[in-house]
Amino acid sequence: MNRFFTEVPTNIPYEGTASRDPLAFRYFNPEQVVNGKTMEEHLRFSVAYWHTFKGSGQDPFGGASFDRPWNRFSSDMDIAKATCEATFEFVTKLGVRYYCFHDRDLAPEGQTFSESCKNLEAMVALAKTFQEQTGVKLLWGTANLFGHPRYTHGAGTNPDVHVFAYAAAQIKHAIAATHELNGENYVFWGGREGYDTLLNTDMNKEARQMARLFHMAVDYAAKIGFTGQFLIEPKPKEPTKHQYDYDAATVLNFLQTYDLSDHFKLNIEANHATLAGHSFAHELTVASDAGKLGSMDINRGDLLLGWDTDQFPTDLYDTVYAMLVVLRQGGLGSGGLNFDAKPKRGSIGTEDLFYAHIGGMDTFARALLIADQIISDGLISDFVAKRYHSWSEKTGKEILAGNASFEKMEAYINKHGEPVLQSGRQEYLENVINSYI
Amino acid sequence: MNRFFTEVPTNIPYEGTASRDPLAFRYFNPEQVVNGKTMEEHLRFSVAYWHTFKGSGQDPFGGASFDRPWNRFSSDMDIAKATCEATFEFVTKLGVRYYCFHDRDLAPEGQTFSESCKNLEAMVALAKTFQEQTGVKLLWGTANLFGHPRYTHGAGTNPDVHVFAYAAAQIKHAIAATHELNGENYVFWGGREGYDTLLNTDMNKEARQMARLFHMAVDYAAKIGFTGQFLIEPKPKEPTKHQYDYDAATVLNFLQTYDLSDHFKLNIEANHATLAGHSFAHELTVASDAGKLGSMDINRGDLLLGWDTDQFPTDLYDTVYAMLVVLRQGGLGSGGLNFDAKPKRGSIGTEDLFYAHIGGMDTFARALLIADQIISDGLISDFVAKRYHSWSEKTGKEILAGNASFEKMEAYINKHGEPVLQSGRQEYLENVINSYI
Amino acid sequence: MNRFFTEVPTNIPYEGTASRDPLAFRYFNPEQVVNGKTMEEHLRFSVAYWHTFKGSGQDPFGGASFDRPWNRFSSDMDIAKATCEATFEFVTKLGVRYYCFHDRDLAPEGQTFSESCKNLEAMVALAKTFQEQTGVKLLWGTANLFGHPRYTHGAGTNPDVHVFAYAAAQIKHAIAATHELNGENYVFWGGREGYDTLLNTDMNKEARQMARLFHMAVDYAAKIGFTGQFLIEPKPKEPTKHQYDYDAATVLNFLQTYDLSDHFKLNIEANHATLAGHSFAHELTVASDAGKLGSMDINRGDLLLGWDTDQFPTDLYDTVYAMLVVLRQGGLGSGGLNFDAKPKRGSIGTEDLFYAHIGGMDTFARALLIADQIISDGLISDFVAKRYHSWSEKTGKEILAGNASFEKMEAYINKHGEPVLQSGRQEYLENVINSYI
Amino acid sequence: MNRFFTEVPTNIPYEGTASRDPLAFRYFNPEQVVNGKTMEEHLRFSVAYWHTFKGSGQDPFGGASFDRPWNRFSSDMDIAKATCEATFEFVTKLGVRYYCFHDRDLAPEGQTFSESCKNLEAMVALAKTFQEQTGVKLLWGTANLFGHPRYTHGAGTNPDVHVFAYAAAQIKHAIAATHELNGENYVFWGGREGYDTLLNTDMNKEARQMARLFHMAVDYAAKIGFTGQFLIEPKPKEPTKHQYDYDAATVLNFLQTYDLSDHFKLNIEANHATLAGHSFAHELTVASDAGKLGSMDINRGDLLLGWDTDQFPTDLYDTVYAMLVVLRQGGLGSGGLNFDAKPKRGSIGTEDLFYAHIGGMDTFARALLIADQIISDGLISDFVAKRYHSWSEKTGKEILAGNASFEKMEAYINKHGEPVLQSGRQEYLENVINSYI
Repeated sequence: MNRFFTEVPTNIPYEGTASRDPLAFRYFNPEQVVNGKTMEEHLRFSVAYWHTFKGSGQDPFGGASFDRPWNRFSSDMDIAKATCEATFEFVTKLGVRYYCFHDRDLAPEGQTFSESCKNLEAMVALAKTFQEQTGVKLLWGTANLFGHPRYTHGAGTNPDVHVFAYAAAQIKHAIAATHELNGENYVFWGGREGYDTLLNTDMNKEARQMARLFHMAVDYAAKIGFTGQFLIEPKPKEPTKHQYDYDAATVLNFLQTYDLSDHFKLNIEANHATLAGHSFAHELTVASDAGKLGSMDINRGDLLLGWDTDQFPTDLYDTVYAMLVVLRQGGLGSGGLNFDAKPKRGSIGTEDLFYAHIGGMDTFARALLIADQIISDGLISDFVAKRYHSWSEKTGKEILAGNASFEKMEAYINKHGEPVLQSGRQEYLENVINSYI
Repeated sequence: MNRFFTEVPTNIPYEGTASRDPLAFRYFNPEQVVNGKTMEEHLRFSVAYWHTFKGSGQDPFGGASFDRPWNRFSSDMDIAKATCEATFEFVTKLGVRYYCFHDRDLAPEGQTFSESCKNLEAMVALAKTFQEQTGVKLLWGTANLFGHPRYTHGAGTNPDVHVFAYAAAQIKHAIAATHELNGENYVFWGGREGYDTLLNTDMNKEARQMARLFHMAVDYAAKIGFTGQFLIEPKPKEPTKHQYDYDAATVLNFLQTYDLSDHFKLNIEANHATLAGHSFAHELTVASDAGKLGSMDINRGDLLLGWDTDQFPTDLYDTVYAMLVVLRQGGLGSGGLNFDAKPKRGSIGTEDLFYAHIGGMDTFARALLIADQIISDGLISDFVAKRYHSWSEKTGKEILAGNASFEKMEAYINKHGEPVLQSGRQEYLENVINSYI
Repeated sequence: MNRFFTEVPTNIPYEGTASRDPLAFRYFNPEQVVNGKTMEEHLRFSVAYWHTFKGSGQDPFGGASFDRPWNRFSSDMDIAKATCEATFEFVTKLGVRYYCFHDRDLAPEGQTFSESCKNLEAMVALAKTFQEQTGVKLLWGTANLFGHPRYTHGAGTNPDVHVFAYAAAQIKHAIAATHELNGENYVFWGGREGYDTLLNTDMNKEARQMARLFHMAVDYAAKIGFTGQFLIEPKPKEPTKHQYDYDAATVLNFLQTYDLSDHFKLNIEANHATLAGHSFAHELTVASDAGKLGSMDINRGDLLLGWDTDQFPTDLYDTVYAMLVVLRQGGLGSGGLNFDAKPKRGSIGTEDLFYAHIGGMDTFARALLIADQIISDGLISDFVAKRYHSWSEKTGKEILAGNASFEKMEAYINKHGEPVLQSGRQEYLENVINSYI
Repeated sequence: MNRFFTEVPTNIPYEGTASRDPLAFRYFNPEQVVNGKTMEEHLRFSVAYWHTFKGSGQDPFGGASFDRPWNRFSSDMDIAKATCEATFEFVTKLGVRYYCFHDRDLAPEGQTFSESCKNLEAMVALAKTFQEQTGVKLLWGTANLFGHPRYTHGAGTNPDVHVFAYAAAQIKHAIAATHELNGENYVFWGGREGYDTLLNTDMNKEARQMARLFHMAVDYAAKIGFTGQFLIEPKPKEPTKHQYDYDAATVLNFLQTYDLSDHFKLNIEANHATLAGHSFAHELTVASDAGKLGSMDINRGDLLLGWDTDQFPTDLYDTVYAMLVVLRQGGLGSGGLNFDAKPKRGSIGTEDLFYAHIGGMDTFARALLIADQIISDGLISDFVAKRYHSWSEKTGKEILAGNASFEKMEAYINKHGEPVLQSGRQEYLENVINSYI
C-alpha cells in the first residue's frame, strides 16, 4: 500500500531524542519495555477515521481547505473505498495498531435505510480484508447519530418515536459491523442528545428514552454474542446548548439511575473534560475511581476558546497526569488512546497528518516514561500516603467501617483538642513533577 | 424592635406597580392568592445571616467597607447578641418569615471547642426568644466548616482524621441547634470539600470519608428526633479548585453510590449553577426530575465573571424559569427561597440592605405571577405535550415499557421509512415568554 | 411579490400588546413617535442576507436542516436570483427598510475572479431593480474574505502578498457594488484576520499590512465618490484563535496607531461583545465615548457557551441598556440595527424566520420605549450627575483643566482630611430599571 | 540575617539537574552566560512584598492560614520592621537581586494621612539601610489605592474629587519613596479603577480623570528628578466587574488618546492576560510590538478558574513562549520578572515560600535556555521568514510603502490569478517546540 502517502514510503522509524527528522519518532519505540509491558501494549493508539480521513478543514466560517487524493472520485462508494485504503495505508505507515470509525465515516448514507445498510456491509467487508492484510484492528465502532438532519432534535432522546426507531435501527447495524470486524469496544457519543432550550424539552422523558435505547443495545449485543465493552463518551455542550452526558459524574449518575452500570464504562476525551470545566486528569480520575475508565479520546482543547478544537495532544503536563491515572489503574484493558484530533484548518497537507500524529504519539510515549518513573520513584505517592496515614489507624478505620458516631467524634475532640494544620505542599509537588519533565 | 434600622420604622408595605417608593413592594403582596395559595406560602423567603448581617464588604483586594451599628461593641458575644437582634428587626420589618444561619454566624468561635459550643447554646437561646416574639422561623441551619484554618484541607474530606472528628463534633451541635430552633431543614455546603491539586489528593478516599460523615448525620438526626430535611448544596469551584459537589447530577451520583438518596435533597443556588456551566433552571430541573429539589438559594451571578458574586436576583427571565420548575413540582415543601446574596461592596448603607431584598422579593413575586399565568394558559405546556405525543402512542409506550428491541425498531423503519423533521420553534417560544413579561 | 413566503400574504401588522398572533407586532409600531422621531427612524432595522437567506442550519456536527424554496434551482445564478427575490419579499412583508450583504451572499463565486465580478454585477443590477420597486435600502455591504480556502491564513493579514492582492481586488468590487446600491455604510469584519498560533505569525507585520488595506479602501472610496461610513466590526475569537479586532478598544487603538481614526467607526455586535468578556452595553459605551459608535449588529449570545450562537435578541435587559447608549448619543446616524442572527438549527421553517425577526423587532421597540422613559424621567441620570457633582466644582474643574498637581492635591488632603464614603446604590438602581420593564 | 528563615541558613545553591534537593536550583545558575549575558542579567527576578511577606492565606471563604513569625509583634510598626527584615533575609538567601512593594506593604496606614506618610518615610529609611547592607535593589514601587475603603469607588476614577485628591497625594509619596530607594520603575495597577455597574458610572469622565492623574505623575517625576520607567499593569476584571486597564491593547489606546504614550510602558502579568482571554505570550507580543513591553509580573492562572489565582509559574510552555518574546526584543531594559505569585492557602510553611520561588526561578531559567536555543537554531524564525518572504519583494514592498491601490491589486490578480494555499504547519511547529523541552 503506497498510493496516497507516497511521501512516506515506509514505516515511521524510531530514531531517539537526537533526531530532528519530523517523520521519525523521538520517544515512541514500540518494542521498548516499560514496567513489564511494551510501549505498544501500554499505548494502544488508534487513528480516528472521521478527523484524519473524512475531515475537510471546513469550519463554521469557511469551506473545505483540505484537498485529499482519496476524495477525487465521482461516486460516493468509490470515495469510500479509496478512503478505506488510505486509512490502512496511513495507519500502517504510522505504525499504529488500531483505528475507530462511525458507520457513516466508513460508508456513505444511501437514499434509503436499507441502501445505507448495504453500503455499510460492503465497506465492512473491504475493511475486514484490509484488517487481515495489515494486522490493524478495530478499537471501536460507533454510529453517527448527529450529522443527518433527521437527528436535529436528538436520536435516542428525540421527541418523535420515529426518529428513535431510526436511531435504534442504525445502531443495530453499527454494532453488527463492529462485531464483524472484531471491534474491542463500542462507543456512544450523544451528539444531539441534549437540548437547545428547556422551553420545548422534557428532560426527564428524554432520559428515560435514552435508557431504553441503551438497554436495547445491551440486549442486542448479548443476542449476537458481541462481548466488546460498551462505552459512553461525556461531553457538556456543543452541538446542543446542553448535552445530557455532561461529564463523567453525570453519566455515572445516569447509569446508576437506569440500572446500566454493569454494562457501560466511559470513554473520556481531553477536550470534552475541559469544556465541562474539568481537567482531563480530573475526569479520568472520576471514571477510574468508579471502576469505569474504559478508554480515552486523546486530543487537546484551547482553554481560552469555548469550543471543541480537537487539537493534537502535545502538552506534556496533561499527558503525564493522564498516564499517571492510567498506570495506577493498571492500563485501559480493552480500551485505547484514540486520536480524536484534527489538524488545524491551515495545516492542509497530508504530511501534516503525519506530523500531527507523530507529535501526539511521541508526547504520550514521553508521558508514559515520565509517569512510570514518577510512580516507581514513589516521591508523590509516598507523600500522599503519609498525608492520609491517620485514616489507616484506629479512629480512621472505625469511621470508614461505619462504627463511629457524632458522639464518639465529640469525645475525640474533647480529648485531643485542636488539630495541627499541615502544609499541602502544592508548589513542592509541582516542582517534583517538573523535575521529571 | 427599632434599634438598628430606624430609617424603616414599620413594615415594608405593598403599594402596587405604580409606587416609586424604594421602600415599598410593587409586586410582593403576601396575602394575595395565586392558584390556591398565598404569595407568602409560595415564596417562603429567608434572609441569610452571613451576607446580610455578618457581611463586611471585604473582598480579596480590600477591607471592610460596611460599618454596621451592630458591630460597634467590644466583646464578641455582645456583637453576636446585637447582630441577632438586628436580624430579627430586619426580617420583621422586611416582612419575611424565615432566616438561615451557619453556627459561626450566630455565635463566635471560642478558644476551645467547648467554649464554642457554649457560645452557640447561649445564642440559640436568645434566637429562640426572638423567634417566639416575632413569629419568624428558621428555614435551615448549617455548620461553617470552611472559615477556620483547621479546615484548610477540608472538613469531612480532610486527610487528617483529627479534622474530620472536629467537623463531625461541630455538625452535631449545629444539627442540635437547628433542632432546638425547629429548623425545617439542615444544609450541607462543602466549602472546603474539594481539592486544589490532584497531586496531593486521594479523591476516592475523600468521597468515602464524606459518605460516612453524612451517614453519621442521618443517624444522629434519628437519635435526637430531628425530622427536618437534609439538603446538600452543589457548587463547582471556589474556594477550592474543584469542589466535590460540582452540580446537581454529581451530588445525585454521590448519593446513589453511597446509599444516601433516601435522606438527602438538594439546595440549588443560582450562582453555583452558572459557575458549573448550567443555567439555574437547568439545575432546578435536574434536581426536580430526580424528586430531589428541596430548596433554593436565590441570588444571581455575573456570567461574564468567573467567581461567586452572589448578587441579588433581579433578572426576570431567570426567576420566571425558576418559578416554572417550582410550580410544576407543586412547591418546595419544607424548603424555601433563601437570599444567599450580598450587596455590592460599594452599597455600604443599611438602607441598601432593604433595597436589595425588596428588589429580590419583588422580582420573585412578579416571576410567580408570570409563571402561574404561563402554566394556566398552557401555550408552552401544550406545545411540549404535542411535541412528544408519539411517546404516548403504541410504539412509544412499548419502548418505554421495555418491550421493544433493535429488531422491532428496524422493522418499524423498513415499514415507515424516513421521519419528517419538525421545527423546534425556539424563537416562537421565546416570544411567548416575552409576551408574559 | 408573494412567491416564497405565501403563509404571510401581506405585511406584518402592529396589533398592540394584547395580541397573541405570532405574526403580528406587539410593540413595533413604525409610525409611533418617540421623543420626536418615529420608531422606524429610531430603529433602522436591517435583515442580514447571510443568516436569513443563505443560512442552512449546518453546524460543525451536521448538515443543512433548512430546506429553502429559493435554493431549489439547478444553477448557482438561478439560486442567487431566487434568493434575491426572496430577500425583498421577506423584508417587505416584515416591514423592514434595510438589508445588508456580503458580496458572496448576493452572487456566487465564479471560476475566475472576473467571473465572480460579473456575477456580482449582474446581481447588483437585479437588487437595484428590487430596491427601486420596494423602497428597501442597503444599510451596508461588505466582502466575504473568510469563506473561500484562499483566505485560510487571512486576507489583508495574509503572509502571502498574492492573497492580499486578491482581497484588495475583491473589496474594490464590493465597495463599488455598495456604492451602486447607495449603501449607507461599508463594513469590514476580519473573519480570518487573526492567528491560530503565534509560532508561525508575525503579528506586527500583519497589522501594518491591514492598515495599508484600509488606507487603500479610503483612497478608493474618495476616488469613486462613495461617501458611506466605513465601519469595523470587532470580534475576539472564532474562526481564528485570536482575531485582531478583539474588541472596541483594540480597534480604536489600531485606528489611532495607523492614522485611520478619521475614516472609520465601529459596528458593535452583541455576541462579539460577550465573547470578548464584555457586555453589549460596555462595548457600545466604549465606542460611543470615543465618538465612534456607527452601527449595531443585533443578536444575542449564550453566556454559558463559548462560541458565536447569533441568537435573535429577546432579552429586555440587554436591549434596554443598548438603547440607552444609542439614545444618549442621539441615534446611530447612517447606521442601523442589523439582525446578524440566525434561527436555531431546529427552527427549520420559513415561518420561524418571521417569528424570529418579529420577536427581535418587538424586543427592541419595547426597549426603545423603556429607555426613552428612563431618560425622560431622569432618575438614573440625576443620580449619576449628583454622584459626580464635585467634578463640576472648583477643584474638580482645575484637575480636569490640567491645572492641578500632586502638591496641590496633598494640600487639599491636609486641609480636608479623610473623604466620606458614599453608597454606589447598585441594587437600588437595578430596581429602578426593573420598575420600567 | 538569619532570624526568620533559619531552616535555610545560607544561600540556595545551584546544583544542576541531577539534584533532588528541594532547596537547590536545578537550572538557575546566576553566573552562567547565555548569549552574552549572565542568567542573572537576563532574569532580573524580583520578590513581591505583598504576597510573599504580607500574604496571610486568607480567601473569601476563610481566614488567615499562614502564621508568620514576623507578624508576632504587638505594634503595627514593629511588625512592619520585622517584615522588612524578613524580606531582605529571604531575598538574600534566595539569591534574588530585586524586590517590589506597595507603599502600604512596607508601612502601615496611620490614623491620618500625615501619619501614614511618616510611617512610610521611617520604613523607607530602614529599607534603604537593608538595601545598602545586602545589595538588593528596588525593581519598582507602587501605591496601594485599592485596599482602603475610601477607594471603594475608585482612586483616580472616583466620582468624588476628594478621593482623587487623596490618591494623588498618596502616589506623590509613593513615587518619592521609590525615588529615594533608587527604584528602577514605578507601577500603576488600578485595582479599583473600573466599574461594577454602568448604571452609576460615567466611563468617559472617569477616563479623563485618570489621564489627569497620570499627567500629574509625569510632571511630579520630572520635578523631583525621578527617571525610572512608569508602567501600567493591565487587568480585565476583579475586583471590579470591569477594570479600565482591560488588556495591553486597551491601555495602549488610552495612552494614545490622552497623549501619554511617551511616558508609559506596560507591566504584563501572566494571570491578568488569561483573565482577559489572551495567552501571556499574546499580551507580551502586543506590548512588545508597540515598543512598550517594560516589565513582567510572573505567575500563572488556572484557566479552568475565573479569578486571579496568582500561582507560581511552573509551566514550561508559557515561560518558553514568554522568554522568546523577551529575548527577541533584547531584554526588558529597566524591567524585570516580578513574582506576583502566592503560595496556595494550604501551603502554610515558610519553607513553602522557598520551594515556590525556587520552582518559579528554575522554570524561567530553563525557559531562558530553551528559548535561546530555539532562537539560535533558527528553525522557527526561518520558517516564519520564509512564510512572509513575498512581503520583502516588489509588490509587497510597494504595498507597505503606501504605493499600491485597489486598481493595482486587481491588475495583479488579473495577471496572476488564484493564489496557491500553503500549509501553516502548526502541528509541526508545536513538535519542534517540544523537541527543545
